[in-house]
Amino acid sequence: MTDRKEFRDLATPAEARAALDELDLAPEPETVSLAEARGRVLAERVDATIDVPGFDRASMDGYAVRAADTFGASERDPVVLPRVGVVHAGEKPRVSVGEGECVEVSTGAVMPDGADAVVPVERTSESDDEVAFETAVAPGDSVMAAGADVAAGERALGPGTELTPREIGLLSALGVDDVPVRGRPTVGVVSTGDELVRPGDALDHRRGQIYDVNSDTIAAAVADAGGIPRLYPHVGDDYDELESQLRTAADECDLVLSSGSTSASAVDVVYRVVEDAGELLLHGVSVKPGKPMLVGRIGDSAYVGLPGYPVSALTVFRTFVAPRIRDAAGVREPASASVSGRLAVRVRHGEGRTRLLAVGLVTDGRGETLVYPVDKGSGATTSLVDADGVVEIDADTDYLAAGEAVTVELFSPDVRPPALLAVGEDDPTVSRTLDDVPDPRYLGAGSRTGVRRLRDGVPDVVVVSGPIEPDDPTEELAAWTREWGLVVPTGNPAGIGGLRDLLDADHRFVNRTTASGLRATLDARLDELAGDDETGRALAERIRGYEHGVRAHESPARRVADGAADVGLGLRASAERLDLGFVPLGDEPVRALANPERTGKDGVRALERALDERT
Amino acid sequence: MTDRKEFRDLATPAEARAALDELDLAPEPETVSLAEARGRVLAERVDATIDVPGFDRASMDGYAVRAADTFGASERDPVVLPRVGVVHAGEKPRVSVGEGECVEVSTGAVMPDGADAVVPVERTSESDDEVAFETAVAPGDSVMAAGADVAAGERALGPGTELTPREIGLLSALGVDDVPVRGRPTVGVVSTGDELVRPGDALDHRRGQIYDVNSDTIAAAVADAGGIPRLYPHVGDDYDELESQLRTAADECDLVLSSGSTSASAVDVVYRVVEDAGELLLHGVSVKPGKPMLVGRIGDSAYVGLPGYPVSALTVFRTFVAPRIRDAAGVREPASASVSGRLAVRVRHGEGRTRLLAVGLVTDGRGETLVYPVDKGSGATTSLVDADGVVEIDADTDYLAAGEAVTVELFSPDVRPPALLAVGEDDPTVSRTLDDVPDPRYLGAGSRTGVRRLRDGVPDVVVVSGPIEPDDPTEELAAWTREWGLVVPTGNPAGIGGLRDLLDADHRFVNRTTASGLRATLDARLDELAGDDETGRALAERIRGYEHGVRAHESPARRVADGAADVGLGLRASAERLDLGFVPLGDEPVRALANPERTGKDGVRALERALDERT
Repeated sequence: MTDRKEFRDLATPAEARAALDELDLAPEPETVSLAEARGRVLAERVDATIDVPGFDRASMDGYAVRAADTFGASERDPVVLPRVGVVHAGEKPRVSVGEGECVEVSTGAVMPDGADAVVPVERTSESDDEVAFETAVAPGDSVMAAGADVAAGERALGPGTELTPREIGLLSALGVDDVPVRGRPTVGVVSTGDELVRPGDALDHRRGQIYDVNSDTIAAAVADAGGIPRLYPHVGDDYDELESQLRTAADECDLVLSSGSTSASAVDVVYRVVEDAGELLLHGVSVKPGKPMLVGRIGDSAYVGLPGYPVSALTVFRTFVAPRIRDAAGVREPASASVSGRLAVRVRHGEGRTRLLAVGLVTDGRGETLVYPVDKGSGATTSLVDADGVVEIDADTDYLAAGEAVTVELFSPDVRPPALLAVGEDDPTVSRTLDDVPDPRYLGAGSRTGVRRLRDGVPDVVVVSGPIEPDDPTEELAAWTREWGLVVPTGNPAGIGGLRDLLDADHRFVNRTTASGLRATLDARLDELAGDDETGRALAERIRGYEHGVRAHESPARRVADGAADVGLGLRASAERLDLGFVPLGDEPVRALANPERTGKDGVRALERALDERT
Repeated sequence: MTDRKEFRDLATPAEARAALDELDLAPEPETVSLAEARGRVLAERVDATIDVPGFDRASMDGYAVRAADTFGASERDPVVLPRVGVVHAGEKPRVSVGEGECVEVSTGAVMPDGADAVVPVERTSESDDEVAFETAVAPGDSVMAAGADVAAGERALGPGTELTPREIGLLSALGVDDVPVRGRPTVGVVSTGDELVRPGDALDHRRGQIYDVNSDTIAAAVADAGGIPRLYPHVGDDYDELESQLRTAADECDLVLSSGSTSASAVDVVYRVVEDAGELLLHGVSVKPGKPMLVGRIGDSAYVGLPGYPVSALTVFRTFVAPRIRDAAGVREPASASVSGRLAVRVRHGEGRTRLLAVGLVTDGRGETLVYPVDKGSGATTSLVDADGVVEIDADTDYLAAGEAVTVELFSPDVRPPALLAVGEDDPTVSRTLDDVPDPRYLGAGSRTGVRRLRDGVPDVVVVSGPIEPDDPTEELAAWTREWGLVVPTGNPAGIGGLRDLLDADHRFVNRTTASGLRATLDARLDELAGDDETGRALAERIRGYEHGVRAHESPARRVADGAADVGLGLRASAERLDLGFVPLGDEPVRALANPERTGKDGVRALERALDERT
């Protein structure tokens, strides 16, 4: 085997943060126009250079007067003054107000010389260029003095202010169009791995190609954190190619992130490139996931190596890197970047290193937030959407008890628990119905998994098929059946008539995983078939491929369509969808069962209504 | 006067919302690339068209084997198998695994034919192309089956899903680069008013020009709500010009917003244009501010007329328009768009129409959020940054009691109370010092205003100068003095030696407002000067301009610099900054005094430290 870089002296998470703090990511300040200023952060204080308003301004439609002339006026005994002119907003007064005179003004007009107050039009009546005033006013009434809003020389906004529409309004009022703002760090993202292909390009499964997940995921997370992502083409494990790409990225960016170095050889190459082209401050952190994290410099730029699995990469990015990008951009972490909740289940730990546990959120029947571990393994990209954030568990924690309060650092600000969390059988009716339910989360992990998670109090609803029955009390939302059987190639060339034809035969069969209700239905049928002489289990062993199950309901049929198998356990719906042959074996019941404490949730009610229409 | 459009039959806020709901703002869906998909909303469900992984995939570095060959292996009694080849990630296997053989694999590699499990390298030792296995494995161990993560045909993401980095990761894994998303409504913004000037252009105060605040403010708020703002040049009250601008905007946008129709004539013009070019659904809403709001259609586009004052325009936009833009874009209001708090003071109402009260937030000594009205009047642009959001008060509410719980609809999501709220004297030392305090809010409304607000329990700190003293207990954070006197033109051409020279003289004097501590200092000096024969008040009446005060400390000096005044009450610091003459009259004390219940706040401690360094 290739020599492996051993992470003997793993840094603590605190040491990793300290190493990151040593790096300088902050770009130079820049100047942007008002139209581009939203969301940016002021680099320096902005003082008013003008008075707002810049003149004594009528703040009502009415008549500008010398206040003293109105003294004593009342409805019964109005004061009558000649109107000597008019001033509209946006024009220079061509009259002044002498003693015993008035001038009509509109809101926003410059106060004519001589006047010191405005009488609102509602308290006057005008005829023949004479105005009767039914009220007395004091000097300054209905006038906004020059500088009363903002005065020239005043501090308007301080450095570090985030520019929302309101601050943009104040800058507009001051006439500031060139806004000095903090720079946003440019962050280069380089995925490594010979097996990667850009989304949109064709994939060769036989060569073990997979789509590059990290590049776009991390780029979006960089943008979320206030940085400017720059994607570079992914590179393989070739030293020269990787070195050239990392050096280019370092020249163009304030921070370079690489990810995808899942193979030991790639880690070695990245390691050597950083040592040759810069400085390695830290390699290996005592955190799971994140052990192979690298921190260093390439040229003048900062460098962080992220793990290769998408959830791991995003977790390490969110925990260690995003805070530094925010610091560099001058933006605060949103208040909605974390939530509190209680653990739904006990979480064992005791691994001797810090754990960044991917978790999902669900709202219980009282509206409280429950937190449950997402335990698919970090290699699963679906964990990305099944998990909402991360709970950090200290290295010296043995376990966290069910009910324990935890803080979840969310993968994105403002992530909320789904309106509905359902777990269970992968089923085409459920899949379609979810389109009619706002904000659902469905984990098609199988009927048995649903029942197990229900026992832990996690899902709102479980979907079970076949003979599988929860031990816990539930409330049935809907029940329907689906026709199951054997999916065979079009025209059923092998002439398979039923399960007996698979016994001791060469037909390559594809089963479902043991969590599936459909597999339980198959096993029950095999037991029936076996009769008294034999066990169903013994029959199963005579089917070629029985032991190998796939998770999703359509997958066996797809294997048949691909020619990778001759017979698949499946549904008539799948066979028809893929234009395959079908040997019916029966109707299987499917039920959506709610946790009785969650039946009041909007999402559960929406699912019930939607299933009622679909089934 | 011009005929005025009377709003006799004002609609209720509920009717206004219903009229807005009638309008169709939603643009057609569109397709964007993954790199542009962040923050967008899926227009339709996305099903997986491929298995992820697309092949049985080694999930550890190690050796691919037939699991049965390892049965019985242990550390003491390892099973030894010949290594017949190697498969790296991203390459097509060129070997298969026969009975009693093994093949080296790296993480991510395609499982070679024949093998059904991987033994991690850590549990093996290799020498001379033979591998000793120290553990038994079961079929499927350390292998991720094709489709185990996502299976072809599975529902991956539902319609309406907001695309965060995680969903972008899942789309990447599925190879989806063309993402079907909801369109974002294009929103045209047209400000009206002859007096408006674009920020960045020169302003003519004499003509009563002011900068156009609403255009950029509303445009930024449109972007916040998920729309695409499009700014149009502001127009005056001319019918043809306004009609042409509104029609152009309606042709190009899904929604047209106008604002700034503060004068009655402009309202009339807008009203007529909408009636001629489209349909007016509603004019006038029984809400303050927002009475002149218009809702209608121009051509095929929706139209809303906003009030002219910036805070009013933003308030009406936030309350009525932003939710519709979000609906059209398919985005939810962020959870952080509103906060709860308790009113710091009693708020009178009883106006017979709904009130949208602009309020500020402050954190009290226990960390609770207090809400206080921002009562500057909607004409003040500084209200934009002094207010954090809006409390809606029903038409039939007479008053809200101090301590009452209210919900504040924030002007922007994630607005938080400032770290420090200070109110009081406008002072250059304070102004500079605030740069060293993170996230402060300072209302330079004068010493007396500070003392009054302190009585209401609003600010953390008050800054008072001169003889002004709070009635309430305070804790002194810092005390310093500032030299005050008369600011005169450079060289003091009138030879003013002191206050006596202003009595019965022609010198045009500029005072500070009565809220100012400096004015109190001046009044005390006039009392001393008056002696026994006369009152200070009588002396004051003999100073030309004594009655007219300006709010900010530098404003009198600026009036002198502009030639609009001959003498200003001010500070040596201002005179020096503006290169003016100065006649010293004494040293005035300035003190920063904390509410004793708030001395533990970070912001208060930061101000104390910063003042300690500056003074």
